[in-house]
Amino acid sequence: MASVGVNGAHERVSAAVLIIGDEILSGRTQDTNLRDIARYLGTFGVDVAEARVAPDIIEEIVAALNALRARYDYVITTGGIGPTHDDITADAVAAAFDTELYEHPEILAMMQARWGGELNAARRRMARVPIGGELVKNPVQGPPGFAIGNVFVLAGVPQIMRGMLEDVGPRLRTGAVTISRTVRVEGTGEGAIAAPLEAVAKAHPAMSLGSYPFFGPEGYGSNLVLRGRDAAEVAATIAELIAALTAAGIANVSEVSPS
Amino acid sequence: MASVGVNGAHERVSAAVLIIGDEILSGRTQDTNLRDIARYLGTFGVDVAEARVAPDIIEEIVAALNALRARYDYVITTGGIGPTHDDITADAVAAAFDTELYEHPEILAMMQARWGGELNAARRRMARVPIGGELVKNPVQGPPGFAIGNVFVLAGVPQIMRGMLEDVGPRLRTGAVTISRTVRVEGTGEGAIAAPLEAVAKAHPAMSLGSYPFFGPEGYGSNLVLRGRDAAEVAATIAELIAALTAAGIANVSEVSPS
Repeated sequence: MASVGVNGAHERVSAAVLIIGDEILSGRTQDTNLRDIARYLGTFGVDVAEARVAPDIIEEIVAALNALRARYDYVITTGGIGPTHDDITADAVAAAFDTELYEHPEILAMMQARWGGELNAARRRMARVPIGGELVKNPVQGPPGFAIGNVFVLAGVPQIMRGMLEDVGPRLRTGAVTISRTVRVEGTGEGAIAAPLEAVAKAHPAMSLGSYPFFGPEGYGSNLVLRGRDAAEVAATIAELIAALTAAGIANVSEVSPS
Repeated sequence: MASVGVNGAHERVSAAVLIIGDEILSGRTQDTNLRDIARYLGTFGVDVAEARVAPDIIEEIVAALNALRARYDYVITTGGIGPTHDDITADAVAAAFDTELYEHPEILAMMQARWGGELNAARRRMARVPIGGELVKNPVQGPPGFAIGNVFVLAGVPQIMRGMLEDVGPRLRTGAVTISRTVRVEGTGEGAIAAPLEAVAKAHPAMSLGSYPFFGPEGYGSNLVLRGRDAAEVAATIAELIAALTAAGIANVSEVSPS
């Protein structure tokens, strides 16, 4: 199913989703990440061709990951990258790629700035990245995800997963160009943002609008990400969204410069 | 992972779930069947050990079904048993079992009573069952599902799927029922919880301990879920975990009442 040859506008680009976690298989937690990833990748012309849910057992994760990464252009994993003993995704990815984990200096520096003397062994687990991996930004809360080969390793918490996805799309090989712009709202929660955001989203069904709330010692708010393929509609939607937020009495709204 | 030998109180009985349908992989439809099946089977002591989502492509369904039915005690499939051209689950199951489909007289009689002269070719597709299969009652609406070997073939529509499940449980060889209890920690992140949790997990290898963090405008913390089959050990582990968290200086620890 992997695409072959020169990348053309109509070439199929495929992906698989690997959801990791006993809590999904036990029915305790309702997965929504598959749906969100499929919709997100769809705006980049990337089709999810298969999905699997694996338990928190390293051999199972390695086997599923190796089957999927050999067959599809991309694999997105969610879950198992936290600080507890059952968070073994990084170990499994390193094993699948026959490499080792190391503490990434950039993550370690972030964590030292955040935790200082409270940076314990459990938290340091989250700084581990396979040799050869690159970071995937986390705009929400906590340490980044990572990418290695054709595999992207994201958090399981849906809000964080969706935020990390924004750093996946721009790295995908895709025929049609998607334009992404971000409006940042500081000091207002999603509860007040939801109504104006939804009104603008309904007026532009061809656009994808997402809200990625952040909070922490430095403050709270949300990053509103708009994606579409028509530059004029993206520009119009940005303007409408800022106007709608302002009309709703929301302050500290500004467009983030493209990175 | 399949259990072996005589069914004992602590034998593990395993199942896999195979969700069939392009609409799940495209993100158009949010699957809820995996969660519902996992919870239902859990009450019979049957653990869902793996799940897959396959597209509406016959070779893909056959390959996934054969991999799963060889490995687990049971496989539950959902979706693809309607009247349209993309409903190919029955064909795929027959191919996987190297058998043929035939029009089941009981289903045909139900349909003739329901549709009379309007029983067209598309509707008759839903009367097809593999030779050697048995019916699974549909108490909701429409034709029944079927079972063959260790595979149960159910509808994709959640209400119908749940109704059909009621005719699956009584046919299962059941394992020991898993007891699940939850300790909720509010206002403390996983980084501080990890060490005491891991110490308790290591002391009880027969138990499953998982940490499922939550956060949002209303606060943050984690639900620590303990699962095991021995009631006395579950109770002892809960007590040890609460003591270990308290000894680590963590406040706002309480057991959640079982639902």
